[in-house]
Amino acid sequence: MAPMPSAYERLRAHLRETAVLSSCSRILGWDRETYLPRGATGLRADQTALLARLAHERRTSPALRDLLAEAREACPERDSPRAANVREAQREFERATRIPAALIEERARLTTLARQAWLDARAKRQFGIFLPWLGKIVQLCRDEAEALDPPGEAYDAHLDEYEPGATAKEIEAVLSPLRDALAALLRRVLASGKRLPDAPVRGDFPVEGQRRLSGRVLEAIGFDFSRGRTDLTAHAFCGGMGPFDVRLSSRFDPGFLVDGFFGTLHEGGHGLYEQGLDPDEFGMPCGTACSLGIHESQSRLWENLVGRSRAFWRHFLPAARKEFPDALRDVTPDALHGALNGIQPTFIRVDADELTYNLHICLRFDLERALLSGDLDATDLPQAWNDGFERLLGIRPAHDADGCLQDIHWSAGLVGYFPTYTLGNLYGAQIFERAREELGDLDAAFARGEFLPLRDWLREKIYRHGMRYPAKDLVARITGNPPSPRPLLTHLERRCAELYG
Amino acid sequence: MAPMPSAYERLRAHLRETAVLSSCSRILGWDRETYLPRGATGLRADQTALLARLAHERRTSPALRDLLAEAREACPERDSPRAANVREAQREFERATRIPAALIEERARLTTLARQAWLDARAKRQFGIFLPWLGKIVQLCRDEAEALDPPGEAYDAHLDEYEPGATAKEIEAVLSPLRDALAALLRRVLASGKRLPDAPVRGDFPVEGQRRLSGRVLEAIGFDFSRGRTDLTAHAFCGGMGPFDVRLSSRFDPGFLVDGFFGTLHEGGHGLYEQGLDPDEFGMPCGTACSLGIHESQSRLWENLVGRSRAFWRHFLPAARKEFPDALRDVTPDALHGALNGIQPTFIRVDADELTYNLHICLRFDLERALLSGDLDATDLPQAWNDGFERLLGIRPAHDADGCLQDIHWSAGLVGYFPTYTLGNLYGAQIFERAREELGDLDAAFARGEFLPLRDWLREKIYRHGMRYPAKDLVARITGNPPSPRPLLTHLERRCAELYG
Repeated sequence: MAPMPSAYERLRAHLRETAVLSSCSRILGWDRETYLPRGATGLRADQTALLARLAHERRTSPALRDLLAEAREACPERDSPRAANVREAQREFERATRIPAALIEERARLTTLARQAWLDARAKRQFGIFLPWLGKIVQLCRDEAEALDPPGEAYDAHLDEYEPGATAKEIEAVLSPLRDALAALLRRVLASGKRLPDAPVRGDFPVEGQRRLSGRVLEAIGFDFSRGRTDLTAHAFCGGMGPFDVRLSSRFDPGFLVDGFFGTLHEGGHGLYEQGLDPDEFGMPCGTACSLGIHESQSRLWENLVGRSRAFWRHFLPAARKEFPDALRDVTPDALHGALNGIQPTFIRVDADELTYNLHICLRFDLERALLSGDLDATDLPQAWNDGFERLLGIRPAHDADGCLQDIHWSAGLVGYFPTYTLGNLYGAQIFERAREELGDLDAAFARGEFLPLRDWLREKIYRHGMRYPAKDLVARITGNPPSPRPLLTHLERRCAELYG
Repeated sequence: MAPMPSAYERLRAHLRETAVLSSCSRILGWDRETYLPRGATGLRADQTALLARLAHERRTSPALRDLLAEAREACPERDSPRAANVREAQREFERATRIPAALIEERARLTTLARQAWLDARAKRQFGIFLPWLGKIVQLCRDEAEALDPPGEAYDAHLDEYEPGATAKEIEAVLSPLRDALAALLRRVLASGKRLPDAPVRGDFPVEGQRRLSGRVLEAIGFDFSRGRTDLTAHAFCGGMGPFDVRLSSRFDPGFLVDGFFGTLHEGGHGLYEQGLDPDEFGMPCGTACSLGIHESQSRLWENLVGRSRAFWRHFLPAARKEFPDALRDVTPDALHGALNGIQPTFIRVDADELTYNLHICLRFDLERALLSGDLDATDLPQAWNDGFERLLGIRPAHDADGCLQDIHWSAGLVGYFPTYTLGNLYGAQIFERAREELGDLDAAFARGEFLPLRDWLREKIYRHGMRYPAKDLVARITGNPPSPRPLLTHLERRCAELYG
C-alpha cells in the first residue's frame, strides 16, 4: 500500500482541484467573449454562477481549514515554496471565509444592476443615473472591509485582493512623488510647443495584416502557440487557464495601427507570464501570478519599454512595411518613433500616452480612497474628478462620459484595482532597468530580433516564482532596491528629452 | 414568505442544476475539438474528469433518491409531461446508481487505453494489437449488464442507454426483414450494370465557398444562428448545450463537395432537434432528446430525404453554381442527382451510400450481440466480420482496417450504439412519409426554397416533446403505425427504380 499522503500533499491536492474547477470557469468566460451565441447569455450566467458557488464552497470548506492547520504545523522552514504555499493559501482562506454569504450575494446582485446603470449613464452622459448605484457600491465595499478587518484603513482590505500585502499608505508614498514629477515633466513637454502627430500610423492597415504582424511579434518574444492561442474579440484580454492554456484576444482597427498592435503586445506580456508559471505548482500560490501590479509590469514592459523602442522597430519595420506597403512607404524610423511616443493630455485613460496614463491613475486612486473613507461623497465625484483632472492634466472634461463615467471598474465593484496599473508601470521600469544591467546591450539584441534572452531572464526572475515572494519583496530581490518611482521617471524623462528636446 | 416549493419543483431544480453542470462539460468538449491548444490536453482531461465526477455525484445522490420518491408519490396523472419527467428521471437514477463505482472507473481507464490500442491496431492493420482490449471491453460490458440486470438479454442493458426501452429482440424484428430486402435490392441494382459516377461533385470546391453554401442551407432549413454556430474541426459533430447553444462543426474537402456539405446538413438536422427542445424543460427528460434513434432520424431526414432530393437541388443548384462556377458549369440536374445517390458496396461505413449503410449496421448489430452473449469469441471477430460482409455486400475486406477495425465505437466501450443509426434511417423515412401526407406537396415547397413548414412540423411532432414518449410510441403517435422498415424500403426502392431502372 502507498503511504498515507502528508497534510501538505493533501492540501496540494485540494488546492489543485479547486484550480481545475476555476479553470473551467475561465474557459467559459473566454468562450463568452469569443464564440458564445448571443441567445445563450442567460445559460452562461447560470453556468458560471454554479461553478463559482462550487469553487467558493471548496475555498471555504472545513476540510480546507483542517488541512491548513495540519500543514502549518508540519511546515517549519520559512521562505521555502512550501511555506509560501501554506502562507498564501491561509491568507486566501481567511479572505474567503471572512466575508459573509449575504455580502457575496449582494455583490453579485449589485454589480449586475450597477453595470447596467453605468452603461446607461455613460451613454446619456448623466451621472445621476449611476449615482445611487455608486453609493451602494461604496457602502458594500465598506461593509466588506469591515468584515475583512485589515490592520490599517478600509481601502487596504480591497487593495489586498489585487496587490497582496500592499497598503494605501505605501502606495501613496510611491505615487505622490511620481505625480508631482510627472505633472512637472508634462508641463515641460507642453511648453516645448512640439507636437508628434500619429498620422504615420493612421491609414490603410487591413486587419489580416495586423493579425499576421502581431502573430510574428508574439512568436519572436516567445509566446508558445502550442500552449496558447489568439482570437478576435470586442475588447483585448488575456485569459490564463494555467501555463498550458493561455488565450490572448485582440481587436484591430483597420485605420489605425497602434491600438490593436500594442494591445496584442500588451496581452502577450501577460501571456508570457502565465505561460512561464511553474506547471508543477499549478493551483498552488507558487504557481499563481504574484499580484496584479507584477502582472501589469510584464504587459507594460513588453508594450512600452520593448515595443515602443527604436530598436524594436529597427527589427520589425521591414516586416510591417511588407504587410502595409502603401501606409508605411514614406514613414521614416524617426517619424514612426515619434508617432508611437507622442505625449498629449487626453480624457480617456485607455487611450492615454505612457506619461499621462499615470496621472489618470493617481487621480482615481485619490478619489476612490476618499470615497471609501467618507472624505468624498459620491454626489461630489464629478466635481472632484473634473477639478483634479484639470489640476493634473490642464484640461477639463466637458461631460462625465469623458470624466468619472469612463471606466467600468467602480460599477463592477472594483475598488483598489486602479493603482495596480501604475504599480505595473513602475515595477516594469525598475525591473527593465535591472535587465539592461544584467543582459548587456538589449537594444542591439532587439534590433537583431533577439527577444528570448529577456523572456528567459523574466521567467527566471519572476514567472517561475508565482506568489513565493510578496510583490515588493520580489522587486527588491530582483533589483536590489525597494519599489521606487525613480526608474520610471528616468525612462520617461529620457524619452521626453529625446523627443521634445 | 414564498410557499415551500413542492417535491416536484425541488426535483426540477435538482435536475436543472445537474444539466447546467453537464452543459459546462459539453462546452469543454466542444472547445477540445475546436480551439484547445494541444499542450492543454492533459489539463482538459482533468477538467472533464472533475466535472464528470461532480455530475455523477449529483445523479446518484441520496437527496435525489428522496426527491424522486416524494415526487412519485405526488404525481398521479399518467402521460403528462410531469409524469414523464418523474418516470425518466427515476429510470436514469436507477441506471446511474446500479453500476458500482469500480466499474465506472474501470470503464474510464479501459476505454482510454483501448482507444490507444485501437488506433495503433488500425494504423498497422493488426487486429492482434486490439484483441486483448476488445476482450476486456466485452467483459466490462457483461459486468455492467449484470449490474443493470435487465429483464431480457445482456445486450438490452446497453441498448437501453442509447434507445431507452428498446430490446434486442425488437430491433432484430425490424432489422431482419430490412436486411433481406436491402440485400435483394442491392443485387438488383448491381445486376442493372449501371454506374452513377460521382465525378460531377469532384473538382475545385474551395472550402470558403462550401462554408458559405452550407451556411445558406442551414439558414434556409431554420437553424437559428443566434442560438448556435458553426466551426471547422477534424470530424463533424453537433454539440448541444441546451436549446440556446447548439454548435455544429464541419470538415470540408476542397476537392469533393459531398462529405462536407452533407456532413453539415446532417449535423444541422441534429441541431434543429436540439434548438427545438422546450427551453422551459431544460434539464428535464421532457427537455432532452428522446433517443439516439430519433436524433439520428432528424439528421438523416434532412441529409438524405431532403438534401439528396431533386427538389432540394432545383432550389440550391443556382446558388451552388455561383460558388463553384467552374466545377458545376456543365453539371446537369440529372447528373448531379445521380452523383449524390449512386449505390455501390464499399468497405467503410461512414462513406457508404444510403442503401448499403444499413447493411453495415445489420452486420455490426449481429456481431456485437454475439460477442456479448458469448456466441462469438473476440478472437474470431475478423473472420466473422469478413464472412458476414461478403455475404451481405458481395465484397471482402483485404485487411481489418477496412473491416472490423474501422470504427471507434467498440474501443470506446460503445456496444449497443450501432443499431440506432439504422433505427434513425427507418424512423426518418416513416416520419417523412407522414409529413408528406400532412404537409401537401413538399417537393414543390423545397423547389421554392421553403423548408420551414417541415421544420415547424417536426418541432411540433418531435422536438418539443423530448422524452415524453418512448421512441416507438412517439413514432406510432406521429405516423399511426409502430416502427416499420417499410417506408425506408419504399423510399429506397423508388430511388433505385428511378436511377437504375
